[in-house]
Amino acid sequence: MVSRIGREIEISPVELASQIAKKVEIDLASGNPDPNVMPLREIKEAYQEVIEEYGSKALTYPGAGGQEALVKEIENSYLPLLDLPKNGKVVITSGAQHAIELLSKYFLEDDTIAVENPTFIETFTPLKLRSNVVLPISVDSKGINVEELEAMLKIVKIKLLYVIPNCHNPAGVTLCEERRKRLVELAEKYDFYILEDDPYKPIAGETPKPIKYFDKSGRVIYVSSFSKIIAPGLRTGFILANEEIAEKISLLEQMDFSTSTINQYVVLKLLKKGVVKDRMRYLYSHYSNKMKVLIDSLEDEGFKDFNKPSCGFFLLLDLKKDSWKVFYEAVKRGLSFVPAKPFFLRGGETMARLSISVSSEEKIRKGVKILKEAWNSV
Amino acid sequence: MVSRIGREIEISPVELASQIAKKVEIDLASGNPDPNVMPLREIKEAYQEVIEEYGSKALTYPGAGGQEALVKEIENSYLPLLDLPKNGKVVITSGAQHAIELLSKYFLEDDTIAVENPTFIETFTPLKLRSNVVLPISVDSKGINVEELEAMLKIVKIKLLYVIPNCHNPAGVTLCEERRKRLVELAEKYDFYILEDDPYKPIAGETPKPIKYFDKSGRVIYVSSFSKIIAPGLRTGFILANEEIAEKISLLEQMDFSTSTINQYVVLKLLKKGVVKDRMRYLYSHYSNKMKVLIDSLEDEGFKDFNKPSCGFFLLLDLKKDSWKVFYEAVKRGLSFVPAKPFFLRGGETMARLSISVSSEEKIRKGVKILKEAWNSV
Repeated sequence: MVSRIGREIEISPVELASQIAKKVEIDLASGNPDPNVMPLREIKEAYQEVIEEYGSKALTYPGAGGQEALVKEIENSYLPLLDLPKNGKVVITSGAQHAIELLSKYFLEDDTIAVENPTFIETFTPLKLRSNVVLPISVDSKGINVEELEAMLKIVKIKLLYVIPNCHNPAGVTLCEERRKRLVELAEKYDFYILEDDPYKPIAGETPKPIKYFDKSGRVIYVSSFSKIIAPGLRTGFILANEEIAEKISLLEQMDFSTSTINQYVVLKLLKKGVVKDRMRYLYSHYSNKMKVLIDSLEDEGFKDFNKPSCGFFLLLDLKKDSWKVFYEAVKRGLSFVPAKPFFLRGGETMARLSISVSSEEKIRKGVKILKEAWNSV
Repeated sequence: MVSRIGREIEISPVELASQIAKKVEIDLASGNPDPNVMPLREIKEAYQEVIEEYGSKALTYPGAGGQEALVKEIENSYLPLLDLPKNGKVVITSGAQHAIELLSKYFLEDDTIAVENPTFIETFTPLKLRSNVVLPISVDSKGINVEELEAMLKIVKIKLLYVIPNCHNPAGVTLCEERRKRLVELAEKYDFYILEDDPYKPIAGETPKPIKYFDKSGRVIYVSSFSKIIAPGLRTGFILANEEIAEKISLLEQMDFSTSTINQYVVLKLLKKGVVKDRMRYLYSHYSNKMKVLIDSLEDEGFKDFNKPSCGFFLLLDLKKDSWKVFYEAVKRGLSFVPAKPFFLRGGETMARLSISVSSEEKIRKGVKILKEAWNSV
């Protein structure tokens, strides 16, 4: 009676866990940026200035592809901050999720794709619902296992690979540079596209160069977001892709026309004023301090089975016990996290995603103690 | 190499005509709301108040389905202003275009649908690109020809009917109440859905009751927008549908997550303050005065072949000559309008869509004179 997408769409487990998280004292579940460091004053000023400066122009329909002034500012001044050469064209979107939805809509129709195992469910969904076959490739301490991918490619043709190279959600790992170059080589050899989803780069400090950096043939589509560096509520992000793909994605934006004009001007204003650039260093420091507290606390409590993230919000811990059982005991004691099995295409029953983004250092320490108690009781 | 949608998406002719329109003196092409009456001060205040009142809550991720406070305000206080009973659930979207994209994504996969001939290209596109067969049904001075539709339904099964009942874009007509009731009866008899796209209702003054008003079995999905009544740049609209469909559309919103949180709070603020209600009467008066000038000017110049719109921005004029030829002569003389053939599935070569939305009364008068000169020269 309805489409395949209509039949197969379901509530996101991350959404479910968030609803539970709201009811307990310590939140190591939420992947939202820290509300305590949101630049409210700067955003409020920006709205005022934008309306005074641009008037009705800031409140008319968005052009498909985004406001030209923001495109130019990103291409000329922001890409360099992300270590990206201007190899291609920028298209403004309503965030990284919207970008992945557009790219899925463009590329996929009953295709075969490869993704990391685990991957981020929310962005994976638009890709999954338009594919027939999804190949899960393992993730280790250096990111996606490229040898495993290569072995797959020898026997299966894929349309695209979806990868989160920095501060992976949920695994916390960062893809090493050697593997990034190798992915581009494989894409050229085996003729597929790479969707590089990189929302954490602005808060990640030093990372290897983007996969896009090594892209010579226009096969890499880079996806970014202003959600972590400014605020998610603005719903603004962008794609960097070759001219042909960028042109088509712009046309596809006519179908939903969802990107708020005024919010684009607010992002432009914050870029021009250097607010975004200043926050990059500040937020890296803010979040990595909290991550250090999480890592130290886990080690103090005797937890060992995790890769140490060098950036971002997330750490993936192998509890060696059923993570839903530990979760229920934790919630009773006032702690929430995300049992990570839904992020996995295979396995993951004992995995837990811990997030440092919204909690204070004190709550992180306390939360890990509760986690140990809950773990002991199972 | 890419999906059907990726292959078939093309630039909107409305977009093209708008680009030309920017270069001439008199713009009877643009369907944008009048920038001169945009509530800039109220919007600027609203952003300030929203950030002060809600803080980071207004800038976090949107919930799928929309901010609960806005949903409630619309259900309890705004639906009555649109003559809508609360028969179903409200889901916030990123405007009417986004709503139609979501509904297309949900309902359609190689289906058969029926639409008005002409219809609005931009909202038609997501429906078209997911359908195999599109049945065009004529539009006359009272709206969609229901007898013609009924004759079709006897021999073809459709999934849904897409209809713009008030101040039709591009035809300018308003569907009479008798036919609205009949559509609901047909939907029940022949088992199809009705997408009621109603963005002009807030500025339309007195109209017949919405089709949704007569809906007993949950087959009518009502789509609305705040673009005309407040401003398009906020990208906020909503769907009113039965619980089951509303629930599924909310889930689908997880795929693009595009609806700006802060903009939803701004709309909420403007609703609560009565700004939206006040503007309904004011804008109806503003636009209908201009429409009267257009109608009078056309009659003065001897143009006869058009239905007189009772509301909205658009008037569809049969030039009885190739409208692109007249268009080129008009542009040379400083006037733009939209040659309406692209809105038609059949015919329309001599049709012109004239819009009063952005031009002053003086420019409308002058524009019609130029139109006559251009027409004479072809």
